[in-house]
Amino acid sequence: MTKDLLNKVRKQKPLVHHITNNVTVNDCANITLCTGGLPVMAYDVEEVAQMVEAAGALVLNIGTLSPQQVEAMIMAGKRANQLNIPVVLDPVGVGATSLRTDSARRILQEVAVTVIKGNKAEISILAGAGGEIKGVESIGEYHDIAQTATALARRQKCTVVVSGQEDIITDGQQVVLVENGHSLMGAVVGTGCMSASVTGCFIAVEDNTVQACAVALAAFGLAGELAAQAPFVNGPGTYKMALFDAMAALRQQQLDNSHKIKVIK
Amino acid sequence: MTKDLLNKVRKQKPLVHHITNNVTVNDCANITLCTGGLPVMAYDVEEVAQMVEAAGALVLNIGTLSPQQVEAMIMAGKRANQLNIPVVLDPVGVGATSLRTDSARRILQEVAVTVIKGNKAEISILAGAGGEIKGVESIGEYHDIAQTATALARRQKCTVVVSGQEDIITDGQQVVLVENGHSLMGAVVGTGCMSASVTGCFIAVEDNTVQACAVALAAFGLAGELAAQAPFVNGPGTYKMALFDAMAALRQQQLDNSHKIKVIK
Amino acid sequence: MTKDLLNKVRKQKPLVHHITNNVTVNDCANITLCTGGLPVMAYDVEEVAQMVEAAGALVLNIGTLSPQQVEAMIMAGKRANQLNIPVVLDPVGVGATSLRTDSARRILQEVAVTVIKGNKAEISILAGAGGEIKGVESIGEYHDIAQTATALARRQKCTVVVSGQEDIITDGQQVVLVENGHSLMGAVVGTGCMSASVTGCFIAVEDNTVQACAVALAAFGLAGELAAQAPFVNGPGTYKMALFDAMAALRQQQLDNSHKIKVIK
Repeated sequence: MTKDLLNKVRKQKPLVHHITNNVTVNDCANITLCTGGLPVMAYDVEEVAQMVEAAGALVLNIGTLSPQQVEAMIMAGKRANQLNIPVVLDPVGVGATSLRTDSARRILQEVAVTVIKGNKAEISILAGAGGEIKGVESIGEYHDIAQTATALARRQKCTVVVSGQEDIITDGQQVVLVENGHSLMGAVVGTGCMSASVTGCFIAVEDNTVQACAVALAAFGLAGELAAQAPFVNGPGTYKMALFDAMAALRQQQLDNSHKIKVIK
Repeated sequence: MTKDLLNKVRKQKPLVHHITNNVTVNDCANITLCTGGLPVMAYDVEEVAQMVEAAGALVLNIGTLSPQQVEAMIMAGKRANQLNIPVVLDPVGVGATSLRTDSARRILQEVAVTVIKGNKAEISILAGAGGEIKGVESIGEYHDIAQTATALARRQKCTVVVSGQEDIITDGQQVVLVENGHSLMGAVVGTGCMSASVTGCFIAVEDNTVQACAVALAAFGLAGELAAQAPFVNGPGTYKMALFDAMAALRQQQLDNSHKIKVIK
Repeated sequence: MTKDLLNKVRKQKPLVHHITNNVTVNDCANITLCTGGLPVMAYDVEEVAQMVEAAGALVLNIGTLSPQQVEAMIMAGKRANQLNIPVVLDPVGVGATSLRTDSARRILQEVAVTVIKGNKAEISILAGAGGEIKGVESIGEYHDIAQTATALARRQKCTVVVSGQEDIITDGQQVVLVENGHSLMGAVVGTGCMSASVTGCFIAVEDNTVQACAVALAAFGLAGELAAQAPFVNGPGTYKMALFDAMAALRQQQLDNSHKIKVIK
């Protein structure tokens, strides 16, 4: 199931071009490096289309968006599409403001996104199924989220990843669950953003997108589990450092043995 | 004195909307989460007024300001005023450049700020009492800083917090000191900004602003004291991680027992 | 050789004005403080010329540049030149896009830069000797890099620092190597940017630029060596924290005893 993908990332060292928020940008860069990719952040409309040409994947994150940044995202996304470079969209806080909702929808209209990764509220809102968001946090209950995600995947002809205690991955046909992870991940700002960066590393080296996403989330979640065992971890601050350590130390063999990927459909 | 406020923050999980600098933004987000609030960062004029509607408090920090960001701050601040959402202003580096001084003054003119939190130089400069700043660092001596802060609080009809080895909090009538804290906090970039975020969490749940500020600074200072006792702490890098751990682990009971809040007037 | 420079930094506490990228900005601020300087970040064209007046050094880093930021860099750089304040340019990712290449060249034309610090590809590209860059990472082999750096230093009448396993420093006449450092530094995003900040601290207190750069890189590299010995270090996350600790704890005596500065020419 894991198909030697972690080894592949480390061998190919894909460049992962991020156009992302300014809150978690350093974390995204570091987790990319710990996973085995090379991070690059470039935002300006004058350079994004050129920068993405060298990339193995493009990660778009609207966490602290501006209209100009959305233009850059669309420009980079279109160039990525021309070159068959996969694109991840993390629609952070969609539904919280019109700017976020309209921008996410516009990106989805103008760019063929390979993966949409969001929390339950974000995916539900994008799918048009309603949802409640407090800032960038999903609140409320989402009973049929797998079905909602499947509908969104079909409509957008892409893979949808719903992050949560149990991650759901679907391309509209297949449905896969990933149960790796640790509760402390939710106590650190940016683990959601980081999971998109890790996903970027894996879809850069594997064409089967559902599988690449599943292995990416299993790897990141397993690193989260292992980090919680580090002897000095005593809360979110130390845990975050241990998470980078664990991701860098993760081996393919461990991933093969300890992934909790479940194919549902 | 502490009025169960830490528990209240953790129960209500107030959204704290930040328009802040790009140096310490990740730290502000993490300390908000560790305190019990939900951080959100949103900067663009097209979304700030809408984002703040869901917030329990708005934190404005001019650490890396631009004229456009100041517009966004005023827009968000005015909307917060309409909805009675409290506003914290952290006038980072005021006095160092005309842009900072003019912007801080303009924000104070156009927005009814609930709390101004600054170091001695920043408060003194805003009060019109002179002051010397080196970049964003207060230098020089400030003999009558409590009096200066009182004058500023009266003029602006707000609460003024002067951070320092001993924090001073005044609304122009009451004067309260908070003596919690640790010298290593000064060795980490961003502890000043973080204290504004913590303040945002507390004023979101308590209408008595002087009290909310005092408890916020006592809680953050106590976390700073406890962090210094973590066994692996060996300098500013490890201390910063321990500070997040300590803030997340802090309990109301500890705060009740170990706060050093002194009502002077 | 080390001329008491670390003590001098700590005594003079130079303000180091950064116009830098948003990925590693927090790291640059913290390493400046750990070294003994005072960091300030200010980017807007309306304030940079005024902010730099108080600075001991100006650090320009094009890691996430925009045309407006380049204007600000040139404005600050020209003011620094008028006041004889030294300027460090870190041409991050030059060669990866036209915007980066053109901007770096324009800065070098309009500002008298004191130090250019880059990886092998960046220095080679700036020198016009070709070079291959993947995002912001140097790839490929550079056989005559000392000679290339010397040519660039002569052309620009400045000091060139080539970072690598062994750092090369040259003003076009002298050539100095610094062999301090540790392989884990390459596993942390931002150590390159941080070394420019440390360099800023040292050139602020010493007119002999080659010597100031050599001592700066030896100090940072030695901190990197000492950090690797911290008992809790278990990967890039914990190492980064240990690096800040080690830089803050570094003493002049240790630097005198353990620097690996070699004067070649």
